Amino acid sequence: MSTLAIIGVGLIGGSLARAAKAGGSVSRVVGFGRGASNLQDALRLQIIDEIAVSAAAAVKDADIVVLAIPVAATETVLRSIAPALKPDAVVTDVGSVKQAVMAAASRALGAHCVRFVPAHPIAGTEDSGAAASRADLFRDKRVIFTPDDDTDTAALERVATLWRKAGAEVLTMDAAQHDRVFARTSHLPHLLAYQLVDLLAHTYEPVLPAATPSVFDFAASGFRDFTRIASSDPAMWRDICLHNRDAILNALDQYRAGLEELRAAIARGDGEHLFKLFGDAKHVRDRYIK
Amino acid sequence: MSTLAIIGVGLIGGSLARAAKAGGSVSRVVGFGRGASNLQDALRLQIIDEIAVSAAAAVKDADIVVLAIPVAATETVLRSIAPALKPDAVVTDVGSVKQAVMAAASRALGAHCVRFVPAHPIAGTEDSGAAASRADLFRDKRVIFTPDDDTDTAALERVATLWRKAGAEVLTMDAAQHDRVFARTSHLPHLLAYQLVDLLAHTYEPVLPAATPSVFDFAASGFRDFTRIASSDPAMWRDICLHNRDAILNALDQYRAGLEELRAAIARGDGEHLFKLFGDAKHVRDRYIK
Repeated sequence: MSTLAIIGVGLIGGSLARAAKAGGSVSRVVGFGRGASNLQDALRLQIIDEIAVSAAAAVKDADIVVLAIPVAATETVLRSIAPALKPDAVVTDVGSVKQAVMAAASRALGAHCVRFVPAHPIAGTEDSGAAASRADLFRDKRVIFTPDDDTDTAALERVATLWRKAGAEVLTMDAAQHDRVFARTSHLPHLLAYQLVDLLAHTYEPVLPAATPSVFDFAASGFRDFTRIASSDPAMWRDICLHNRDAILNALDQYRAGLEELRAAIARGDGEHLFKLFGDAKHVRDRYIK
Repeated sequence: MSTLAIIGVGLIGGSLARAAKAGGSVSRVVGFGRGASNLQDALRLQIIDEIAVSAAAAVKDADIVVLAIPVAATETVLRSIAPALKPDAVVTDVGSVKQAVMAAASRALGAHCVRFVPAHPIAGTEDSGAAASRADLFRDKRVIFTPDDDTDTAALERVATLWRKAGAEVLTMDAAQHDRVFARTSHLPHLLAYQLVDLLAHTYEPVLPAATPSVFDFAASGFRDFTRIASSDPAMWRDICLHNRDAILNALDQYRAGLEELRAAIARGDGEHLFKLFGDAKHVRDRYIK
């Protein structure tokens, strides 16, 4: 039986710890993170068995180390734990961008980097913190692994087992492709939602009637769902923008080019173009998104 | 007790008919629409009491006439029913744009236009058709009236009573302001969602791994909610774009300017700007959207 160290016992880290304990993958979970009261919650809820005094202390007996922290903190944390790792310890992460994380691991872990398994679970909610974690968060969800040619096969298999026991399906992908795909399916939509809320927050007279307290009073359920992701953690999304810059700019530029075409179609009153665009999109969405 | 004519017995028209019958606002509902099988559904579900052979036939005994049809069809339908209207019949609509509808009413109804009450219920789902209608669809929802100075007060009150008995709150607004507000809270988000699905539908190699059937396989729940409105009726949204062109272009241009600023911030790695934008948006959304 093995010991699991969770650095960052939030929604994702906490849920993986819960699933690992429930599935019998690990016998003991040691947690570390920045928020003392969050760690106390995690201990009280038996998500972790022990609070470590530092990241290095958390990993010293660990067989598997999971980093569930903002992407920007990866290198600093890896540098702080590197000297304390057991020689055969497997290290993995849950970050939404993979090339930047792998570069950080390469710089920080040296030779131990072959036992770093870059991973990204496609799951989550706009909630955060250990108290929001659930053992079934990853059930029937996908986890993307983006190993390189040097990644140790046994380490990969160990992390894959952890995720499979949590109910997830493991897929492997090239890190650069991962970052391009998620720039489109996840990062871009977050930016668009934040930007729309920003536009509405700055909507005053004459658009808005003088006596109206807020333009949001005229928002329906479609708006609520569209902007749900704009309630996500701003620090996390800042970091993703900074660490997946090229792929996000590429996706954003293609999107902006599309908006420009759409604008031109509206301006010239081209109903045929609009009907085809909207109809094709509806068709694709109804087919692929359940 | 009065007779209600519903032209277009879909989600909105059907739900208003159900609510009116349930609330005792009307004694008889006559329906007309383009889809014969949808009308048969409405009759079988007792949403309507009678299927009329034409829009004109539907309104001939009606005290209140509700148009629940695509905005683009308003003028044609109003012209066809105008000669058949009882002198004191009140006519109203449920369209998402109001200036274009009022202009159509003015052209089509002549002197009867004073008894036309422009209305827009802020409710709906991406489903459509009489079978999807519900008596409680408008409960605790808002309905915006956009009368002009000539609108008959008794006609206004009659339509307001219909909506209040359906559980809705009636607000009054200037038509131009209505169109500007909804260009932002509703029309723009629909365009953004359609455009995002379009971008993803045209995402192939090298962004996407060769063996992957669809980029949508990597979409999480945030994407599903963000794009839910892209499953809306394409003809309805084409019509809205064509009939609220100026306000939509204005909103879209402000949004595009915002995206350009956001792009620049990402390109120069300006974490402070990104954190403030995302943080302010999250704060506003958490405060105003329940």
